[in-house]
Amino acid sequence: MIKVVNHIPEIREIINNWKSQGFKVGFVPTMGYFHEGHLSLMREAKRLSDKVVVSIFVNPTQFGPNEDLDKYPRDIKRDIDLAQKVGVDIIFAPDATQMYDPDFQTWVTVEKLSQGLCGDFRPRHFKGVATVVTKLFNIVQPDISVFGQKDYQQLLVIKRLVKDLNMPIEIIGHPIVREKDGLAMSSRNTYLSSKERENALSLYKSLIHAKNLIEQGESSPEKVIDEIRNIIESYPLTRIEYIFLGDPENLAPYHKQIKKDVLIALAVWVGNTRLIDNIIIKIS
Amino acid sequence: MIKVVNHIPEIREIINNWKSQGFKVGFVPTMGYFHEGHLSLMREAKRLSDKVVVSIFVNPTQFGPNEDLDKYPRDIKRDIDLAQKVGVDIIFAPDATQMYDPDFQTWVTVEKLSQGLCGDFRPRHFKGVATVVTKLFNIVQPDISVFGQKDYQQLLVIKRLVKDLNMPIEIIGHPIVREKDGLAMSSRNTYLSSKERENALSLYKSLIHAKNLIEQGESSPEKVIDEIRNIIESYPLTRIEYIFLGDPENLAPYHKQIKKDVLIALAVWVGNTRLIDNIIIKIS
Repeated sequence: MIKVVNHIPEIREIINNWKSQGFKVGFVPTMGYFHEGHLSLMREAKRLSDKVVVSIFVNPTQFGPNEDLDKYPRDIKRDIDLAQKVGVDIIFAPDATQMYDPDFQTWVTVEKLSQGLCGDFRPRHFKGVATVVTKLFNIVQPDISVFGQKDYQQLLVIKRLVKDLNMPIEIIGHPIVREKDGLAMSSRNTYLSSKERENALSLYKSLIHAKNLIEQGESSPEKVIDEIRNIIESYPLTRIEYIFLGDPENLAPYHKQIKKDVLIALAVWVGNTRLIDNIIIKIS
Repeated sequence: MIKVVNHIPEIREIINNWKSQGFKVGFVPTMGYFHEGHLSLMREAKRLSDKVVVSIFVNPTQFGPNEDLDKYPRDIKRDIDLAQKVGVDIIFAPDATQMYDPDFQTWVTVEKLSQGLCGDFRPRHFKGVATVVTKLFNIVQPDISVFGQKDYQQLLVIKRLVKDLNMPIEIIGHPIVREKDGLAMSSRNTYLSSKERENALSLYKSLIHAKNLIEQGESSPEKVIDEIRNIIESYPLTRIEYIFLGDPENLAPYHKQIKKDVLIALAVWVGNTRLIDNIIIKIS
């Protein structure tokens, strides 16, 4: 039976009890409103550990002042049901006042990897993410933690902070889960009208096209980016925020030639909804 | 028998082994060159836990470009001897390349408490301290950790970061240990010539004088600070960096009147050596 825990001392007690019994703890931090992407992370955590904790916390410090903190979709009852079916042991759902007291003032920043891509458009986002993930890791003290590759830059930021701060946690990246037509699953897809939903497909289509181009030998980053831009812009409700093409290890853009494995990452507004997607193309 | 450990995986293994046996781990992070102040922290850690780890790491990231990183005194053999006599179990002495790899980029900052006092004169100091202490805590995973009150601002910064980042560690502040004549013990006292050593006494003398004044009813911060300044400046080799008088909880200066408990904290250059000292005066 899944258990919902709202308070830090209570979850600490459960975790300490598990640890003293030698259980391996897996952790999936989320903002809730689960879709198949989240559930795949939970299944992976379950496969790799004895006990699974999933946190649901819509973290205010990772939203900018004009972003969608207030309207971010929530449905905790449905979330609990879905997590239970996957075999999650604990849902940890603290409130914001518990996570951030009025004198809160400690921040974790991952300097280089937080720049570029989403970092350029959401200036304090990764500071908020790195800080809340550090807090959640210190509360849950997992042995492993699973993150989706859709938030690819976030995954790199978290891998780096765990390494740099010597946290004894293994970070596991898990592949993007897509709808049948290819749209990357996201809680924010719920914002899309049906016309917007059609336009949203442009992200995946352009990524697949880029993959084909590169696999057929195209080595000019500029050309690939141009073709991606053309595809996306052929959908009238889209507005491109960025198209990144570069090194999947350190997020350095490729300027002249594609010689090594490539990350292509996109952020595109479809109407009033900001969507991201990415693909990694292996160069053999 | 004390054991010296230089590598992170080795200390992790020892700690994991201790934890699995239910031992309570106490930790004293230091920069080495032990004096009685350090030893009193170790004794306190020993009193409060089953196993004691002392780290010796002269952390480059907490020194400014023109500070004394290179000449900071070191004597690891003597340190090991002294720690052994106190009953320390492990000296953890990593080298800097192990603590900071070339891609290191994650920093912990405690924003408000790192400002004012030493923070104004050593702009990146507390960022370096907060970051290395977070790293050491994640490596050693202590139940308790003991810090000296001589570095009073540092103690507040660390208490705050542990609270804000939800680290399951109790931070214990331990009183300043002084030479017979009152000079606060510091590894940096070794820099002082005998003339400078006499001048260095001005810090403690001015603090005691301030305490007497306040206990006799003086409630003007300005007057107390003036008298401190006069005493210190009567010693020709001194140069005052700051005299702080304010709230020991949040480091807010008292401007108008002393009504609550007072922290007086000083930083004074004596020749080329920067010394700090402080006192807390309880207002009943």
